[in-house]
Amino acid sequence: MRAEIVSVGTELLLGQIADTNAQHLGQLLPQLGIGHTHRQTVGDNLARLEEALRLALSRADIVFTIGGLGPTEDDLTREGIARALDDELVHDEVLESELRRIFADRQSSWVDSQLRQAFRPSCARAIPNPNGTAPGLICEKNGKLVIALPGPRGEFVPMADGPVREFLSMRAGEGVIASRLLRVCGIGEGVLEKKIGHLLASSNPTVAPYAKIGEVHLRLTASAKSVEQAWRRIEPFEEEIRSIVGLAVYGIEDQTLESVVVEMLRKKRWSLAVAESCTGGGLGSRITSVAGSSDVFVGGFIAYSNDAKAKLLRVSPSIFTEGGPGAVSEECAKEMALGASRALNADYAVSVTGIAGPGGGSQAKPVGTVYIGIAYPGGVWAERQTFRSDRAGVRERAIQWALIRLRERLLDHG
Amino acid sequence: MRAEIVSVGTELLLGQIADTNAQHLGQLLPQLGIGHTHRQTVGDNLARLEEALRLALSRADIVFTIGGLGPTEDDLTREGIARALDDELVHDEVLESELRRIFADRQSSWVDSQLRQAFRPSCARAIPNPNGTAPGLICEKNGKLVIALPGPRGEFVPMADGPVREFLSMRAGEGVIASRLLRVCGIGEGVLEKKIGHLLASSNPTVAPYAKIGEVHLRLTASAKSVEQAWRRIEPFEEEIRSIVGLAVYGIEDQTLESVVVEMLRKKRWSLAVAESCTGGGLGSRITSVAGSSDVFVGGFIAYSNDAKAKLLRVSPSIFTEGGPGAVSEECAKEMALGASRALNADYAVSVTGIAGPGGGSQAKPVGTVYIGIAYPGGVWAERQTFRSDRAGVRERAIQWALIRLRERLLDHG
Repeated sequence: MRAEIVSVGTELLLGQIADTNAQHLGQLLPQLGIGHTHRQTVGDNLARLEEALRLALSRADIVFTIGGLGPTEDDLTREGIARALDDELVHDEVLESELRRIFADRQSSWVDSQLRQAFRPSCARAIPNPNGTAPGLICEKNGKLVIALPGPRGEFVPMADGPVREFLSMRAGEGVIASRLLRVCGIGEGVLEKKIGHLLASSNPTVAPYAKIGEVHLRLTASAKSVEQAWRRIEPFEEEIRSIVGLAVYGIEDQTLESVVVEMLRKKRWSLAVAESCTGGGLGSRITSVAGSSDVFVGGFIAYSNDAKAKLLRVSPSIFTEGGPGAVSEECAKEMALGASRALNADYAVSVTGIAGPGGGSQAKPVGTVYIGIAYPGGVWAERQTFRSDRAGVRERAIQWALIRLRERLLDHG
Repeated sequence: MRAEIVSVGTELLLGQIADTNAQHLGQLLPQLGIGHTHRQTVGDNLARLEEALRLALSRADIVFTIGGLGPTEDDLTREGIARALDDELVHDEVLESELRRIFADRQSSWVDSQLRQAFRPSCARAIPNPNGTAPGLICEKNGKLVIALPGPRGEFVPMADGPVREFLSMRAGEGVIASRLLRVCGIGEGVLEKKIGHLLASSNPTVAPYAKIGEVHLRLTASAKSVEQAWRRIEPFEEEIRSIVGLAVYGIEDQTLESVVVEMLRKKRWSLAVAESCTGGGLGSRITSVAGSSDVFVGGFIAYSNDAKAKLLRVSPSIFTEGGPGAVSEECAKEMALGASRALNADYAVSVTGIAGPGGGSQAKPVGTVYIGIAYPGGVWAERQTFRSDRAGVRERAIQWALIRLRERLLDHG
């Protein structure tokens, strides 16, 4: 099955928003075994919308529209679909009573412009929208499908991931689809692809790698006659990947590296502190982005100047004196981690000190040189990394690797 | 003049990246008085790229392509343009020697696949790309223009905002364009639009507001026969806006709130520290994203637990005891700021303490309640804010308002 996406909205053309809905749908379709080769974006203009839909219908079996389903005069998607399918709009009494119920529940006063949302092409059925007023639409005519989804992100994503995904799974060749996201850290995409290259050629399940900063996500997707069968296809692949890359698989689905680390600490009732120089608070910020991180994270230090490193973390003055190793060194990273752990009475403490650039580099320590230190019960560890990137990129990579190394230490000591 | 954008890349269809380049170009074109009504996205496929370009050329005067200019076999944009314009690719010796020079400068070893980037449609001239290897292209044939831009964001943005903008300004009706971005903080978009509503209707210069979190950007764009004339059209508008909103205009062009604050401190030779609770290091991270912030920023504390607030910042134990104001209070914010200032001997210190959610809220202090404190030479100040958002949104808004309030205090004391 071949699909095409038509995004509708002048605000998309003007760049007022990025088309993250189309991006989301683009990620979903391959999981369902549906290919798509074109995307179109048009403004709120009926003639151009109809033209775009006719073009899409001429080359695809399923056309998705995003946006233009609201109650205002700019919302033309219903009418555009009806025209492109040589269909007509009909008033749907069930939709109207549903709309009136939503307004009553919200204690909002009814305005007649809302009635636009109770019209649909005669060949369409509605997809309920528990997060807004405009229903989605599944229109089926002459062997073609047009699926209309609302534009607001909080309505689009639940509808795409819920009823639309389910509907398409049922339609797909083998009936249903199952999918597993494996998150792998600390291995580059190239190395990983070499290790699991023989699996990437598989067609059912498919194995698709997505490279991120300091991690790779592997999406395994299988289709089969039942969910159980689909999972039985995925399981041996997941097992083989895990046996090849081992503990580098840090999580699945929407687990993040920081949420996994927080959970590991929580299980052991261990506390965590940080001591940051070049990342300036970014590591603490990422850890505390996890809801409930206060169970394990006690706090930390942004020791940006040498003076702050000495005062707050009691880093030895000899580190900074002429001939000493300096603030960007293994010694300093270790003393920073130990200082944070001691000051906050934390079981673990992670330190980061480096040169984010653009200035401050030297031949021995070029921009991108970063030391990561970890104090743990009974010892301290540190390593040097060199990241080739700009200031923001060096800082992001330093945070990612600090979390990767902290997880490794927690695994060792677990 | 009517334009159309064709974005090229299978990674866009698969949703591996959002098409922020097309978004950027979508914002640029209206500033130049160029309308566009369609955008297409195609994968790395020559036949489909040619088809998309022919369609775009049939309805637009200028077609922009984004991506597909690199050295690999997937990079098909040069060939697609040549086919769609019934032109042919020619080898350009100047481009080749330029490429070889870049490789020599980088001390990278030359690979022959790079040669693809030395080919161009015979009707094209190259746009230099100081940030990468692939040049952009301006192709002109039969009254149509095709402008090819590279996909990597660090190459795309400077080329679009620099030489391409300049080229298009020269082509535009009145010859040249001048543009000014005014950055306004601490006023909501609705309030600002009411205050300057009479200016928004102007057509030359145009005044376009873009709402951000805790700030609004106003883009003033004028066209005229000369740059001087265009600026003479912008100046009275800029003056009027500044006279209406006053010091809420914090910067112009690419100045950020954090870079402006760092610069104000630098001029006065004042030092800065932070004490963060619910933002977990995010405020320090944002300040230290400014290159050279180490001149003024000494460091700070991530005082996430009450224990850390007491130990590191010497917040009085009575704050946390039953019946006390608690960690999320004006008193605590003030003591945190004073504690950070004292511990690091900093002239200014900013504190943030609040409830980011999803848990931890109460009727008196719902999720989103945040106190911001500022210690300054001779005193301390604090205020309560309530942000309606999710965890990430509350944290982002808290950081933004901490910077807004710090700037206000620096202006007062300046």
